[in-house]
Amino acid sequence: MIESTDPPSVIEELVDLSRVAETIQSQLDSFQARHERAGLVLPQDVLQGLRQFNAKLITLRESVTTIEVERRSLRVFAEIGHVVNSSLDLPTVLNEVIDTIIQLTGAQRVFLMLRNARDEMEIYVARNWERESLRPGEYEISRTIVNQVVQHGEAVLTTNAQEDPRFDSMQSVVAYSLRSILCVPLKAKDDLIGVIYADNRIREGIFTESDRFLLSAFANQAAVALENAQLFNDMSMSYDQTLEALVAALDARERETQEHTRRVVLYSMTLARKMGLSEDELIEIRRGALMHDIGKIGVPDAILQKPGPLTEEEWVLMRRHPEEGIRILQGIMFFEGAVDIIGSHHEHYNGNGYPRGLKGEQIPLYARIFSAVDALDAITSDRPYRKAQPFKVAYQEILRCRGTQFDPKVVDAFMTIDEQEWRALRAITLPRERGREPTMEAGGKRGETTR
Amino acid sequence: MIESTDPPSVIEELVDLSRVAETIQSQLDSFQARHERAGLVLPQDVLQGLRQFNAKLITLRESVTTIEVERRSLRVFAEIGHVVNSSLDLPTVLNEVIDTIIQLTGAQRVFLMLRNARDEMEIYVARNWERESLRPGEYEISRTIVNQVVQHGEAVLTTNAQEDPRFDSMQSVVAYSLRSILCVPLKAKDDLIGVIYADNRIREGIFTESDRFLLSAFANQAAVALENAQLFNDMSMSYDQTLEALVAALDARERETQEHTRRVVLYSMTLARKMGLSEDELIEIRRGALMHDIGKIGVPDAILQKPGPLTEEEWVLMRRHPEEGIRILQGIMFFEGAVDIIGSHHEHYNGNGYPRGLKGEQIPLYARIFSAVDALDAITSDRPYRKAQPFKVAYQEILRCRGTQFDPKVVDAFMTIDEQEWRALRAITLPRERGREPTMEAGGKRGETTR
Repeated sequence: MIESTDPPSVIEELVDLSRVAETIQSQLDSFQARHERAGLVLPQDVLQGLRQFNAKLITLRESVTTIEVERRSLRVFAEIGHVVNSSLDLPTVLNEVIDTIIQLTGAQRVFLMLRNARDEMEIYVARNWERESLRPGEYEISRTIVNQVVQHGEAVLTTNAQEDPRFDSMQSVVAYSLRSILCVPLKAKDDLIGVIYADNRIREGIFTESDRFLLSAFANQAAVALENAQLFNDMSMSYDQTLEALVAALDARERETQEHTRRVVLYSMTLARKMGLSEDELIEIRRGALMHDIGKIGVPDAILQKPGPLTEEEWVLMRRHPEEGIRILQGIMFFEGAVDIIGSHHEHYNGNGYPRGLKGEQIPLYARIFSAVDALDAITSDRPYRKAQPFKVAYQEILRCRGTQFDPKVVDAFMTIDEQEWRALRAITLPRERGREPTMEAGGKRGETTR
Repeated sequence: MIESTDPPSVIEELVDLSRVAETIQSQLDSFQARHERAGLVLPQDVLQGLRQFNAKLITLRESVTTIEVERRSLRVFAEIGHVVNSSLDLPTVLNEVIDTIIQLTGAQRVFLMLRNARDEMEIYVARNWERESLRPGEYEISRTIVNQVVQHGEAVLTTNAQEDPRFDSMQSVVAYSLRSILCVPLKAKDDLIGVIYADNRIREGIFTESDRFLLSAFANQAAVALENAQLFNDMSMSYDQTLEALVAALDARERETQEHTRRVVLYSMTLARKMGLSEDELIEIRRGALMHDIGKIGVPDAILQKPGPLTEEEWVLMRRHPEEGIRILQGIMFFEGAVDIIGSHHEHYNGNGYPRGLKGEQIPLYARIFSAVDALDAITSDRPYRKAQPFKVAYQEILRCRGTQFDPKVVDAFMTIDEQEWRALRAITLPRERGREPTMEAGGKRGETTR
């Protein structure tokens, strides 16, 4: 918060002046009374002037109060304006906008409406003065006033909608007993992207011209913040979609189904959340899981698609993929944490993994988490050389490798997750294969479950 | 701009009041003078009260002026504050910040300093009151004051640095004859990311407490805008780097050198710029060129890496790559324009191309531009079945196919670009192969230059 430096209270000084003027007047009154018998009369201008004086002081007090109220509002605005821009996350921005407006104007209800794909104004946020979200049943607003703002692109302020002649024929205004309405456009560059609608159904005249100015200024900022957030969300979404699309296309080279990567993304985030990792860490795990096999871009088809076991020479090439993955994505800020998974997801807790033979806690935590769910998906999916096996087999196998292939802490967390939860996640990622659950008859030899 | 609604001029009313008070006083003075001989004396309080009155009105005028100046500044701030957030482009944001500060405070010089990688405050923008950028020689500022703000995280304001006892021992203040200095921190969340430093070397006392408040509020907004811009730039850069890294890795499957894609990106943007396309269109072309062969993810190694000509069956598979590329990236907003290149870069102007046999203007403009530079790079690069050929051969070949393979308008624009320009672009993209220019002895048969 910014420290406030208040100038001397002008209102108090004006009250003081009124008191002095009254003293002078009463003294002159009694002076005149005392000397009236002597025929002495004070000049008419003096007494008239003093009366004028007192009247003017009262008007002045009102004017100064108006200025002061606006100045104080503007200071609040200056202090909190940046809050609106403090996030590129759209829902956060929208809520900040509304709560700040309620704070500044004392509105009872505020609606933020944005133009939707069908070119209609749609309510995105609706809040009341108790900072609660309104239910759709409480959404009655004057659409006529909204339309007027949308058409003309200018703010509408009415201090008493029921008496204002402009709104005579507007049924909604009468029907909902609305009183004070303030509606301003949200403009990004020259486009009207929405409106902010504030109203108060009980007291009259709560919105002032100063509120209108303030809300318009605020709407300008909010519109820019919304546009920035939108731009950021669009790019972020495109980025995610691009990675998913490319990884799915790459997956298709190696596997019959393209869903392996999407499944291990969900599985690893579930297990990491169970282990108490933060949302920021989950994002890094998500990226790492998504890109874990990216290094296989460079592995020849002949090895990747070989139906039988690999020769030792082929294994040498295959085992390069974690380091190749790091080589491809290293130095890209977005994957700073993710490379932990890409480079170390084939390390084993006992040091028997590859490429570096890391042991125990030398293996990054993300990779220790990931390798367990990678095994889960490998065991419960068809492979060229064996059928998918049931989840129960996966639990047995992962428990069997507790402390050898897998981190005991990771396995312990894994065991607390119900089979049903894994099944549910698998179903999300398999819309086109629903029902193709792993069957009980599956067999296959033990050993390397993943490549 | 927001319409301004000025309250009644309080200053004028105060001036009016002073006039009325003076009239009353002079009338009472002459009244007293007239009646003095009769021993009549007005109460002492009355005349004293009136004198007080006039003094108070003058003080009041000063206080009201202070409030009014602040109110007006805050209104300007409210109106232009959103400008700071109107762009996610960092240099634009920085310039807007500075120009607005100069406008609001009347500073002579304003510096925006940001913490660099070595943890020092580095000057990023330096502007004077004539909206010109300062030369490094004009960069003398009080580092002591900057350090003080950095250490304590609070604004420093001095209206006369030479007389202020706090700055007695600060050599720089004396050396540069600095007068009025205002320095405020730029804070993003709890981190101090920089400072804004404003000063004025000639007049004393130009910065007020109100300026300090204003600049602090402004700095809060600016810090958030800077952080948002940084976040956006980071993501945008990561996105570009990721696409480039993945495309380079995919390129490596097909070609000896991995630079083909990076070259056609530069070539196609150069040709498109020559043809007068907008910056936004150039961005779409850049993305399309970068991803043009993404559909080859699905083409088997055996075809992609075949040293000799393809069989008819192999061609069928190869010719699927434009549609496969569209299938992978379709629906991703980022590639909305780019898919024009991905899907149609093997169409020929006369309708003899693939996959759809589009003719003339049916082929998207971006694709018509791209196919010319794709041919240029194919001809001037080594192929498994022939050596790279000189640029002169590429010009001849592209001109020969004007109206058959290529759009005549595109070829005409291509011909206006000097060979040296292509060579220079090729050199940019070939840091590891510098000097390996295409040689004159190259031959090879005519026909399909690209797959």
